[in-house]
Amino acid sequence: MGTRAGIVVTGTEVLTGRIADRNGPWLADRLLELGIELAHITICGDRPDDIAAALRFQADAGVDVILTTGGLGPTADDMTVATVAEFSGRELVLDIELEHRIAAILRRLMERYPGADFEAVMAANRKQALVPAGATVLEPVGTAPGIVVAGTPTIVVLPGPPRELQEMWPAALATHTVQQAIAQRSRYRQETLRMFGVPESELADSLRHAETEVAGFDQLEITTCLRRGELEIVTRYEPDGERSYRKLVEFLQAEHTRALYSTDGATVDEQVAALLAGRRVATAESCTAGLVSARLTDRPGSSAYVAGGAAVYSNEAKTAVLGVDAGLIIEHGAVSEQVAEAMAEGALRRFEADIAVAITGIAGPDGGTDEKPVGTVCFSVKTADGAGRTETLLLPGNRADIRERSSTVAMHLLRTVLLGS
Amino acid sequence: MGTRAGIVVTGTEVLTGRIADRNGPWLADRLLELGIELAHITICGDRPDDIAAALRFQADAGVDVILTTGGLGPTADDMTVATVAEFSGRELVLDIELEHRIAAILRRLMERYPGADFEAVMAANRKQALVPAGATVLEPVGTAPGIVVAGTPTIVVLPGPPRELQEMWPAALATHTVQQAIAQRSRYRQETLRMFGVPESELADSLRHAETEVAGFDQLEITTCLRRGELEIVTRYEPDGERSYRKLVEFLQAEHTRALYSTDGATVDEQVAALLAGRRVATAESCTAGLVSARLTDRPGSSAYVAGGAAVYSNEAKTAVLGVDAGLIIEHGAVSEQVAEAMAEGALRRFEADIAVAITGIAGPDGGTDEKPVGTVCFSVKTADGAGRTETLLLPGNRADIRERSSTVAMHLLRTVLLGS
Repeated sequence: MGTRAGIVVTGTEVLTGRIADRNGPWLADRLLELGIELAHITICGDRPDDIAAALRFQADAGVDVILTTGGLGPTADDMTVATVAEFSGRELVLDIELEHRIAAILRRLMERYPGADFEAVMAANRKQALVPAGATVLEPVGTAPGIVVAGTPTIVVLPGPPRELQEMWPAALATHTVQQAIAQRSRYRQETLRMFGVPESELADSLRHAETEVAGFDQLEITTCLRRGELEIVTRYEPDGERSYRKLVEFLQAEHTRALYSTDGATVDEQVAALLAGRRVATAESCTAGLVSARLTDRPGSSAYVAGGAAVYSNEAKTAVLGVDAGLIIEHGAVSEQVAEAMAEGALRRFEADIAVAITGIAGPDGGTDEKPVGTVCFSVKTADGAGRTETLLLPGNRADIRERSSTVAMHLLRTVLLGS
Repeated sequence: MGTRAGIVVTGTEVLTGRIADRNGPWLADRLLELGIELAHITICGDRPDDIAAALRFQADAGVDVILTTGGLGPTADDMTVATVAEFSGRELVLDIELEHRIAAILRRLMERYPGADFEAVMAANRKQALVPAGATVLEPVGTAPGIVVAGTPTIVVLPGPPRELQEMWPAALATHTVQQAIAQRSRYRQETLRMFGVPESELADSLRHAETEVAGFDQLEITTCLRRGELEIVTRYEPDGERSYRKLVEFLQAEHTRALYSTDGATVDEQVAALLAGRRVATAESCTAGLVSARLTDRPGSSAYVAGGAAVYSNEAKTAVLGVDAGLIIEHGAVSEQVAEAMAEGALRRFEADIAVAITGIAGPDGGTDEKPVGTVCFSVKTADGAGRTETLLLPGNRADIRERSSTVAMHLLRTVLLGS
């Protein structure tokens, strides 16, 4: 007998599509890792009746645990805790100690707003210290505490901001109440493979062949998805499926030697960061205008290997900042392999880097021609010791897709050259 | 009396978070435009029992219309039509005319795959021509037809691929059955306000005062949310709430004169883009390393006003690329208002821009000191004619939060200086 869970996402801004829900998918992943089956996600607005109906639905579906997100703020439309209290037949009581801890957080926060009225803010936040009788309090990450209410089902009340929810999750999971509620779950392993440069249909074909080639294939629960222009293959199996999983990896490695770039789940960003140890990278970006630079510096400690970057959107900037020969731009066009190479060389010099990546392309919606349609993007990676690689691709999608896909291609080109040099 | 609707998203890949649901938010927008109130979105897997439970839940919640997405394909796990037929007590009948039309579509598609077995494919697709008795068929956009089943509630069955769903939607809406089901809908207006630089709890406090100060406040349905470090306030009202809404805006303008920067829903990005008309902007970024540059160029046509940007992560790059005096960095530190100003001036010169924004800060997790803790960020905006503004903030959150929040602060500083110059 396994454990089933349901997720209740609250928030009118999520229900009406103004904010994309990031919590449902994130929690779904966590449940999957834990071996808990997810029955339903429901999204409702801030109205207590709708929240109560969603709780009732999940309870009637027989889930062991309900996770709620959102509705813990200080404003009048934040009603999750009160609704959960009523749903579980418990009174709301003021937790004075908790109120003091919230006050301390607020006092620190408000030092940034010299004009603000602390007493007024505190009054608004007092409701965040109201807790269903007998519930377990999860310490606030922002200003809102989470709540665990034991019962059938057990209800875990989490905040809406994804960063707060994600930071609070381990504490929720560690509570005795939650551990008891999920004690019956199955134990699964989960592994992730990553591929780049192969269409999804080709992977689907390989997996169909794997069905007959890999002994014990039916022990593996495989889901594939396209993410940021890459293929992610997640496999879940019970411990005795280990041998079959190893065989599957071998099979896919043989079929997709070049495309299968990660067998331990590491992303290309993580691989590039590791390969850059002891070197310094520079970027020269036209159509992506800083996306690759921002992506390389996402990671803590990246100042050790990122020298800098130039967003050279205009032709004048390409010449003035990176020393690209104006004649080269006239002769070949700003979107050309020649200009991409000159940009990479300019970035190497300008930032005194060991390796540089350059991107110049047409992200659209305007600017395309018959010869160079929207989606045409030239990439060049150069190293200080003269190695490198240059290529031109035609990328699908809209402006945002083309820009993001370009940043992924740039990371893979960096990876390839770093591995070869 | 208004009309209420519910959305049932089906698909194990969506439930488990492998694929982000784009249909729920898209349909939510369409319902909002129509003045139909959305009660719940539920997401479930491909199992008929779970789909039926979700339909039952929405029907019990008293919605007038249920929209379902997904589960219309030819494979065995596509069960939505059969489940809807059973739910509404109708037999599934083969629509022979529809089967012929699907066959014609498939024949055309299969011309691309010379080896494929047309009869086998047709057999798999025959189930797509099974329709609940008396239902209205929506012509396929891909190969799957949609279905409208009249009843209480009326059920509209739509395909899963967003492009197919979006193209089919107008036909669904145009059916007599759907028009009848939504005839009672209210006509709502919806307006958006945006604030920056005020904590959410202070807005909550203002809204509590507005309750007594603004006549007809209870005609307004207000939702507030924090997004990218800003507050978004969306108000929905029936046409006769117009006067109350105007009063609310006046009230908030008086209370938050500086913070309330948008009363027409325009984002700071849109405002900055409009203010930049006829001018060219440059960026000089240290801790954000391209985020502001990428954000400025998100918009089509931004090449008209974006000159370029430098990501100067290292001190050497600040000096080599932007001409920041190395002595200044030694004297005041890389994270200082003096260096921010020199970076902005360097970007003005280097990119021959009319206005430049510079950001230098400590995004963490390392690098903080007692004097300059993690989150300390210096901003400077300078114009070619000598105007400008420089400030230092202490931003909350983790590395990603601090970087994103910094890009928002930079946009607002640009806006302020552009308005003043």
